[in-house]
Amino acid sequence: MFQEFVETKSLAKVLTMALYSKEDTLAMRKKLIGSSCRLFFSEEPVKIVKAQGQYLYDEKGRRYLDCISNVHHVGHCHPAVAQAAAAQMQLQNTNTRFLHDNLVQYAARLSETLPEKLQVFYFVNSGSEANDLALRLARQYSQHEDVLVLDHAYHGHLTSLIDISPYKFRKLGGQKEWVHVAPLPDTYRGLYRKEHEDAARAYADEVKCVIDEAHKKGRKIAAFFAESLPSVGGQIVLPPGYFQKVAEYVRAAGAVFVADEVQVGFGRVGRHFWGFQLQGEDFVPDIVTMGKPIGNGHPLSCVATTQEIADAFTANGVEYFNTFGGNPVSCAIGLAVLDVMEKEDLRGNATRVGEYFMKLMNDLKRKHPIIGDVRGVGLFVGIDLVKDRNLRTPAKEEADFILKRLKEEYIFMSSDGPGENVLKFKPPMCFSMDDAKLVADKIDQILSGSERKFPCLRIWRQAQTLQAGYFDYSIILNQVSC
Amino acid sequence: MFQEFVETKSLAKVLTMALYSKEDTLAMRKKLIGSSCRLFFSEEPVKIVKAQGQYLYDEKGRRYLDCISNVHHVGHCHPAVAQAAAAQMQLQNTNTRFLHDNLVQYAARLSETLPEKLQVFYFVNSGSEANDLALRLARQYSQHEDVLVLDHAYHGHLTSLIDISPYKFRKLGGQKEWVHVAPLPDTYRGLYRKEHEDAARAYADEVKCVIDEAHKKGRKIAAFFAESLPSVGGQIVLPPGYFQKVAEYVRAAGAVFVADEVQVGFGRVGRHFWGFQLQGEDFVPDIVTMGKPIGNGHPLSCVATTQEIADAFTANGVEYFNTFGGNPVSCAIGLAVLDVMEKEDLRGNATRVGEYFMKLMNDLKRKHPIIGDVRGVGLFVGIDLVKDRNLRTPAKEEADFILKRLKEEYIFMSSDGPGENVLKFKPPMCFSMDDAKLVADKIDQILSGSERKFPCLRIWRQAQTLQAGYFDYSIILNQVSC
Repeated sequence: MFQEFVETKSLAKVLTMALYSKEDTLAMRKKLIGSSCRLFFSEEPVKIVKAQGQYLYDEKGRRYLDCISNVHHVGHCHPAVAQAAAAQMQLQNTNTRFLHDNLVQYAARLSETLPEKLQVFYFVNSGSEANDLALRLARQYSQHEDVLVLDHAYHGHLTSLIDISPYKFRKLGGQKEWVHVAPLPDTYRGLYRKEHEDAARAYADEVKCVIDEAHKKGRKIAAFFAESLPSVGGQIVLPPGYFQKVAEYVRAAGAVFVADEVQVGFGRVGRHFWGFQLQGEDFVPDIVTMGKPIGNGHPLSCVATTQEIADAFTANGVEYFNTFGGNPVSCAIGLAVLDVMEKEDLRGNATRVGEYFMKLMNDLKRKHPIIGDVRGVGLFVGIDLVKDRNLRTPAKEEADFILKRLKEEYIFMSSDGPGENVLKFKPPMCFSMDDAKLVADKIDQILSGSERKFPCLRIWRQAQTLQAGYFDYSIILNQVSC
Repeated sequence: MFQEFVETKSLAKVLTMALYSKEDTLAMRKKLIGSSCRLFFSEEPVKIVKAQGQYLYDEKGRRYLDCISNVHHVGHCHPAVAQAAAAQMQLQNTNTRFLHDNLVQYAARLSETLPEKLQVFYFVNSGSEANDLALRLARQYSQHEDVLVLDHAYHGHLTSLIDISPYKFRKLGGQKEWVHVAPLPDTYRGLYRKEHEDAARAYADEVKCVIDEAHKKGRKIAAFFAESLPSVGGQIVLPPGYFQKVAEYVRAAGAVFVADEVQVGFGRVGRHFWGFQLQGEDFVPDIVTMGKPIGNGHPLSCVATTQEIADAFTANGVEYFNTFGGNPVSCAIGLAVLDVMEKEDLRGNATRVGEYFMKLMNDLKRKHPIIGDVRGVGLFVGIDLVKDRNLRTPAKEEADFILKRLKEEYIFMSSDGPGENVLKFKPPMCFSMDDAKLVADKIDQILSGSERKFPCLRIWRQAQTLQAGYFDYSIILNQVSC
């Protein structure tokens, strides 16, 4: 029925769906919505009126391939999810102070995806609410206050989370005395790189140093927060074994290990359900937070933790009540998302398409020197663009240009990383092989064509061709204004 | 169609909706859900499988009249709301980085309900997220840190909001140095009572004193937060003119006035759309936060503020992005709720039914000395139960007993207030005259019958009958063990 609905919708019909002209929508937005809420492609924003699977449609019926929407995990407007929501919305939607099957059924289903130790759940409405609750749980359990995070991390938009997000607090009020920052284990441009004999241990030892420094100041750590795959940090894949070693140091300090899976969990990496599982089966966090994809766009998020931590939180004698968290509609949607993931083998698809896309990108890396690094797992991929491969100077302007050009080719992609130079690939999980090929082809075309715009790229290629072995690109680069 | 769906649903069908037996649901809940998440009637919790309008149905098909669910504002599972959600969920649900008509249309509709000064909106997922954002806005604008709140207030479950909620922080870690507490303007049992010549000014002057004390310590206030009708504080109706005077002091201190309308706004008071409007047309807050009822159970909340405050927030140069906040489905639901409110004249209904219920409760007050005070506006009513009218000792055990008995009569009600003795009446806005009469009759019967259980009540009545004028009930009370 839904399929029919989408396919029979003519362009004319799509057009009539728009209540205002694009200009009027934009004018109303400028007047009525806080301008801190930014638009993609702010110079020429896009109005989306329809979406399906991995496609978005604007008010003129133009179809865009979506490499951005990790939230719309099983595909935009999946009929099974919409139908589950509609059915439960007609039936009832009380809060968790009443018993309901959906809540416990959903918790049971989630528990099957997690290690045995993580079997207690709290349902909330956003990844930010989940991380804030994780912080409260950690503090209550440890009876400590401080938080240790990785550099460039982002854990949410709330007061408490801005404080533990270097990505935000460096631009705002600065670092609070209870926040400690360890280096981002970026083996491409960080302190210890791929050639290091044991980057996992070296980066973990940096965490130990930060803990020791904090202890010297009389501070006590409540929690170590890290995304299992640092995303805002530039689509980083952590060296295996890092979390195990960090957890050892963190627990020795009386703190808990929080794996933030809000952006990266829920099967995106393909071969595992959770990002932290890439570190090996011997690693189990104390708290896992999840959000964005789990409700396919519906405000649904969750905290999973151990019985011990949950018991300590209960022992404070104060109720935790979240008005909307865990309501029957949210849980029905959560269950439908899990069903679709299984039925359509979306983890298998993420593995297959992700590997293919990585291969295509690595092919492009050999051809285009601007691609300094291609990294990722499943449908979580980063393409690190550099002005020169030796210095690894972030190619921000080039990244912006490519995104703009991709948009003209009806492909939405975004960038991230401290240098804003890493193309972020995190599409809906139904992304196909053909989609991957299309994106690779378009990037190839743009990079080839853009050599006119960014002459350094051409000179690089020439230099590469001339030199078989090591070549100091920066010598040539310094002579050219990019 | 929906009407048919509800009416034709047989008891058997309702029963089959339950996946697990109630015992199994409870057992799974105990195992899987953090026990800080409490159940109503914890000794004998209720499993709800269906809801419509002001009624909830358990797994055995028993119908309960709902005086609790202020969230399900236009009635549980209103078909117009469910249909609006279903339609938009099939169409698209991108985030606010893309342009969409629903967002600006909803903001425009909300702006019509607010004073002209409050025309900039931020959409979020919960009342807690709204209050946290209000705090961030206030701090950015004022460049101060501290917060002034009313005693017994509750503003949300997040770290930052627990800190500004005396209702919570008094049971947890205590009061932070940046938090200042002013007395709750409760004219029934507070510092200044109904007989005071100008309670509004007296309570406002208390706020001034707290500000002066803070200044003496070198602290600077960023915001004054208050519910327009303190609810957790015991369903308090503030003396008119209080907010005007407080705002004067607060603004003179360089702080902003935040009206927390999460529980009490959106037409619940009937004759006004917002609770703060009860204070008079000359009062306009700097920030208004809204939540619970605006999505009829869907996770949708909002912050409204002035251009000046929004501009100051933008000026920090940092994006505010809320993944789910203001998505097209949430806004479609918000629009549908506004439509239903208008179409069904629910504000008019709140006024009429609320006045009738207040009259019935005041009749009961004359009959039952346990009712010390009846206060409220529209469908926001508190029935303050006292062990004796002179001392106004909170009758907590009696309140608990009445709630338990009401449940046996298939009526859900809750209690609140510092003494946990105030019956809270905050039903869906479609509550009828007959419903009001039923609740009043049942309370009357319970109070009459409970004189056996609580003998002091009977002795009081006898004392009342004997004494025409002033009578020191406490003399008799002290002789009786309640």
